[in-house]
Parts: sequence; C-alpha cells; structure tokens
Amino acid sequence: MTKDNLYIQPKIVLVETSHPGNIGATARAMKTMSLHELVLVNPKQFPNSEATARAASAYDVLDTAAVYETLSEAVADCHWVVGVTARSRRISATAYTPPEIVGKTLHEFNQQKVAFVFGRERNGLTNTELDLCQAICTIPSNPECSSLNIGAAVQVLCYEWQMGVLTAKGSLPVAPTNKAASAVSSHEIEGLYEHLWVALKEAEFFSTRNPEPLMRKLRRIIVRAQLSRIEINILRGILKSFSKQ
Amino acid sequence: MTKDNLYIQPKIVLVETSHPGNIGATARAMKTMSLHELVLVNPKQFPNSEATARAASAYDVLDTAAVYETLSEAVADCHWVVGVTARSRRISATAYTPPEIVGKTLHEFNQQKVAFVFGRERNGLTNTELDLCQAICTIPSNPECSSLNIGAAVQVLCYEWQMGVLTAKGSLPVAPTNKAASAVSSHEIEGLYEHLWVALKEAEFFSTRNPEPLMRKLRRIIVRAQLSRIEINILRGILKSFSKQ
Repeated sequence: MTKDNLYIQPKIVLVETSHPGNIGATARAMKTMSLHELVLVNPKQFPNSEATARAASAYDVLDTAAVYETLSEAVADCHWVVGVTARSRRISATAYTPPEIVGKTLHEFNQQKVAFVFGRERNGLTNTELDLCQAICTIPSNPECSSLNIGAAVQVLCYEWQMGVLTAKGSLPVAPTNKAASAVSSHEIEGLYEHLWVALKEAEFFSTRNPEPLMRKLRRIIVRAQLSRIEINILRGILKSFSKQ
Repeated sequence: MTKDNLYIQPKIVLVETSHPGNIGATARAMKTMSLHELVLVNPKQFPNSEATARAASAYDVLDTAAVYETLSEAVADCHWVVGVTARSRRISATAYTPPEIVGKTLHEFNQQKVAFVFGRERNGLTNTELDLCQAICTIPSNPECSSLNIGAAVQVLCYEWQMGVLTAKGSLPVAPTNKAASAVSSHEIEGLYEHLWVALKEAEFFSTRNPEPLMRKLRRIIVRAQLSRIEINILRGILKSFSKQ
C-alpha cells in the first residue's frame, strides 16, 4: 500500500468503540492522510453497515482491519505506544501536543513499530490501558468542551502525521505567499551553508571534529528556524565580521 | 461567548450541506476548538435531529447558527474569505496549507471579520463561489483519496486555528518531557545569548549597527529553532573557535 518506506506507518488503534460510524470515520480519516493500518480492540459492532457507509472509499482500510480482544495484544509488536486522550487532570502535566508527539515519533522511532491509541467514546482509556502507553498526547481543546468525536480526533492526529512526514521529506506544498520564509530560495539557504562551512574551516573548528555530522546538525537547526531573507543576511553579516578578526 | 477578544473569531460557513450529520459534526468540531459562529448556506435539512445528535454538547452552536440563501450574503460582512477545498488542478498552485492560512489570517487580519468556507459533500465549491474567496486553503492529503469528510475538515482547520491562537498567546501547553529542547533551561539559553553578545562585540559587529534590535532578532531565531542542549553546545563551540582567531 505504501509507496515509500522511508517513514513508518503507525497503527491506529481504537479501543472498545461503541458507535460503528466512528470506526468508518476513522478509516476514512486515515486513508485521506495515507495511513492504512487500523486495529480494533473489542469493537461493539464490527463489521457493520454504518461503518462501511461512513468509511466512504476507505473500505479497504476496514477490510484489512485487525481485531483483538485486548489492547495489550493489539500493541504487543509495538516499540512506541501513544495514548491519545482528552484533557484530564491525571495526565495533563505530561501530555504532548500532536505536533510534538509526531516530531518525537518521526525523529526517535523511525523504522520502528508505532501505535496511536484512541479510547472509548464516553470514558476514553482506563488507567491499565494508559499504563501500556509510553507517552500521552492531548489535542489542545476548549476546557469547557474538550471531547472531540473519535473520528475527528483521529483526523487531527493523522493530519499532523502527514504534515510531519511531508515536512521531513521537504515535500510540503508551499503556497506562493509573501511570507518571509517561503520567499527564501534554496539557493539563498545553500549560500548561508557554504558561508558557514568556509568560516568554520577558516576558524579551524573542524580540526578536532568530524565536519559531516556537524554540518548536518547545523543544517537541521537552520531548517527548523525557517529563516527569512533578512535573517539570512544578518547571519551572513555575523560570519563576515568573525572572519575579519 | 468568547472570553478573550484578543483574537478574532472566524465564521465557519458550510455551503449546501446535504447530510445534516455533517452540520452537527461541524458544530461539535468548532466548539471543541472554542469557535462558535456557524453559518449555513442553503442547507438541505436544518434544523434536524441527526444534526443535533452529532453536535453532542455543541447544541448552542447549532441554536445560534445563521442561515442564508447564498454564499455572497453569508460573507457580505467579511474582509477575508478563505475557501477550503480538496486538492484540485485548478487551485493547487495557489493554495495555502492550514498552518499557513491560519498564520496569515491571525497576522494580517486580526480584529477583522473572517470566514472559512466549506463546500458541498460531493462537489465542493463552484467557481462562482471560489471567486468570492480571497484565498484558498487545501489540507494536504493522499492524492488517491483526498476527500475529507466535511466535519473532519472543519475539525482540522479549527484545530489549526486553536493552535495558532495558543501559540500567538504563548499559552500552548508544553509537555515537560525528555524531549531535548524542553530539557534545556532558560539559563542555558541565556548563556548562549550572553556568549553571542560578547563574541559579536569582540568582532566589532555592532560598530555600524544598533545592537538592541539585532539581538532581539537573533533571540527570535533561537527561540524558533528550539535548540537542544547538544545544539547549544555546538553553537557555543563555534563562537569559541571564532573568538580564538
């Protein structure tokens, strides 16, 4: 199903879903974001015509869904299990936001087996189930109305996943806006790297260090900083004044 | 309804929605993300019991929804109208991603009346309706299955809106994780600034420049880059080797 294996395909696990419509909505949400591996733990009704109707063209995701009796069986092969929960006193202090958990997962668990787990419509995941999770993710929401529909919560997570993968691959479509960062050409960015490389060689920074992994680390910082043209010029000005010393 | 008026509340406009369940799902998606102003253009069935059921506790959003005959009436009071569409040949070249459009809207149209417009289930927005939009937003999706359910698409946009507002207010909850960046103390970041400041003074970088606005710009880059401890050490190592020259 997956065309490129550069990035893992996380499992989406639904625990004891009551409404089959939510299973269908989950399948559709997943497929629109290029995810296919759906796992159901003890669903109330499955297979079911409402699930199929709500899945729209994602019937293949439903067809290949795995069904388990317990969450521990469902995630037995996973190295990194993330519980997605609504705001709650118990977990709020340690919860990641969706972009944080996607970034961490792509960065640290690439090529490993990963699961995102969604709980029951009314009462989410039990404490025992949360204990099976290595991390908790909470979608920031209205404190007075924090419970997203399950299909909607899956859509948000899968969307962030897709955004994370596209960003990591450098293939996120960029609108031709007047946004400072997107107006910067890769030529300008490469100019900054080149300048940095020369300045560091001149300063004998690499005399005791391996240049390649260091330059890669610096590249990552620069990509993350989303520099504008003005900022690139400031940084090049700084490099110039260091070289003059 | 809104407790703080620092940020505008965009209208969510649904055009000729066929399935009342999608109207309910939209109301719920909005309320979970603290948005309340729902506008319906010529809905097929409204009010409707399925809409109410799917809205869950967001019945107040449904109760106060405005209904119009045409999109032009619905957005007559708006200064910035964004059409949210699935991938299409016609618009792909000029479409913003959700974080881009939210950033642009919060930045440039703060305190103005804004609308996000979602089209019909089967065929989206007509060309005449798209002409009423000043910008197009497309949620990056699977080219082989690009059509999100309307409630799910509204959830993604409203989620990005909430993330944008929380980020702008500086109140996005940050997980106290073992994530490299969040493990860095402000003391370490300040150490980097101090080092940078001293190195730039030594290099006479400020001789022809005003230091304060420049240091503020550099601070902004560093915040955006979310440096880890290792990265801070690399950057301080670079500064050290420049000073030695």
